[in-house]
Amino acid sequence: MSARPVRITVVGAGECDQATASIAERVGTEIARRGGVIVCGGLGGVMEAAARGAKAAGGITVGILPGERADDASPFIDIPIATGLGHARNVVNVAAADAVIAVSGGYGTLSEIALALKMGIPVVALASWTISQDISEADSPEEAVARAFELAQARRHE
Amino acid sequence: MSARPVRITVVGAGECDQATASIAERVGTEIARRGGVIVCGGLGGVMEAAARGAKAAGGITVGILPGERADDASPFIDIPIATGLGHARNVVNVAAADAVIAVSGGYGTLSEIALALKMGIPVVALASWTISQDISEADSPEEAVARAFELAQARRHE
Amino acid sequence: MSARPVRITVVGAGECDQATASIAERVGTEIARRGGVIVCGGLGGVMEAAARGAKAAGGITVGILPGERADDASPFIDIPIATGLGHARNVVNVAAADAVIAVSGGYGTLSEIALALKMGIPVVALASWTISQDISEADSPEEAVARAFELAQARRHE
Amino acid sequence: MSARPVRITVVGAGECDQATASIAERVGTEIARRGGVIVCGGLGGVMEAAARGAKAAGGITVGILPGERADDASPFIDIPIATGLGHARNVVNVAAADAVIAVSGGYGTLSEIALALKMGIPVVALASWTISQDISEADSPEEAVARAFELAQARRHE
Repeated sequence: MSARPVRITVVGAGECDQATASIAERVGTEIARRGGVIVCGGLGGVMEAAARGAKAAGGITVGILPGERADDASPFIDIPIATGLGHARNVVNVAAADAVIAVSGGYGTLSEIALALKMGIPVVALASWTISQDISEADSPEEAVARAFELAQARRHE
Repeated sequence: MSARPVRITVVGAGECDQATASIAERVGTEIARRGGVIVCGGLGGVMEAAARGAKAAGGITVGILPGERADDASPFIDIPIATGLGHARNVVNVAAADAVIAVSGGYGTLSEIALALKMGIPVVALASWTISQDISEADSPEEAVARAFELAQARRHE
Repeated sequence: MSARPVRITVVGAGECDQATASIAERVGTEIARRGGVIVCGGLGGVMEAAARGAKAAGGITVGILPGERADDASPFIDIPIATGLGHARNVVNVAAADAVIAVSGGYGTLSEIALALKMGIPVVALASWTISQDISEADSPEEAVARAFELAQARRHE
Repeated sequence: MSARPVRITVVGAGECDQATASIAERVGTEIARRGGVIVCGGLGGVMEAAARGAKAAGGITVGILPGERADDASPFIDIPIATGLGHARNVVNVAAADAVIAVSGGYGTLSEIALALKMGIPVVALASWTISQDISEADSPEEAVARAFELAQARRHE
């Protein structure tokens, strides 16, 4: 299955300041530039910025939504997956990933980091929760994406 | 959001005879030919046949998997969404759709038909469960897809 | 584990007429009289009537709620389990059961019947969906509960 | 609804040392002594110890299981709720609670703490993750339960 595009889930808050949005956007652009599919929660803030960045580079974007309405997805989501699962959509959001990149974020983001670590999915953090040595910290969006691709590929070849 | 491709979820059994697979494959091909994204459960039988048909026509295929491993997806799935939700992935499978096409199928398929009807998502049936006048029955794969696109478009413009 | 009380999930519509409520209430009473725990969706209609019947006979009632608020449960629910899962709570509702009794009901009920059959959980129907010979039909609430207990016990001893 | 018993979910690892089990057991006993219902993940380690402690004091125990088999529950669970949801059962585990007590624990526990904080459910920690001032830290099992009951009652009266 290694021919499938790498799927990177970007997690972060549904509302964020401009500096954080700019970082998330660069993450999305770099994922698309490397041929990856970006998965996110499909809503605003970090999710929207990352999807916007990916679309700017011609990438495909998937949004795993907490509600039942696909129209809740941001305009930068190509494939909205409405779930109706509420917070349990966080589980799907990370289970779908080859690797997760966390950009800043609050308790929802922390739950996704913890669920990813529990499931053995690699996590790269950009100015996010630093609660474990199992999280790989990066200093720039480009470094975060490079690291996420490395970890994703390594996991596929296990 | 009407610019997004129409998403049609194809539901049916994980194992099926050749005649049913052939019908599912034609369903997938016709969805792709019309520019739709095909969503399915990502595994074998009707799901695999529909995804194979879509890929033959250059379509994009999404598989909503019950388990945690993306590698369980059939080779014709571009974007596997591992959920780890077990049977509850059936809910996501239909919630993600603009319209559902059921091809034959057993109790799992029936649960997806019922969940779709409960959520107000149109259902078209091909030799499947005929348990309600709310289900639109079709006589051929091409007719089923045409009808599903009509119902999907009508629902988007509501 | 056979020392645990039998768990019977009662499924049916969230709104119902008086005759249907009366049947559901007798189902609840008979489950409690036999020492069973009643599980249901926790809301109104058939769910509330069954829980009321169980409380009248001193039973314990569990409500698996679609939303996040325990206060949405009917007053006859001892142990509300808020899930926030939306329609996916239907999966939990039946997965929790030794056997399911369906009282009338619409598409939500049909989804629960189908999910139970898929999971191999026995289903007894009272004026409900008659879509399969795998469903055991009963003529009275008392007969339905007797049959559900038999099927539950048989399954535990498999 | 304030007449319903308080529901306290105890979260922690599925395997633990004797000292941790002893703490969890005292937590369970104190919850039952105060008339609360204990909810947990239904399996071993901290979950089993807490349920055992509750049963020793005559309490009622509910186990929200990740798998589909009620028989996977520890012998100290009165009401097993099989979900089949995998890790998404963590969401239900905390959504069901008036308050959560975390005893030690790994990434699964951290996900439950984060989900509870996201949902606005109070969290009390005993030698567990200290990642936020929104978590109330306790020095003994009895203090943890006293604090959890206070926070639960305050939330009910909001």
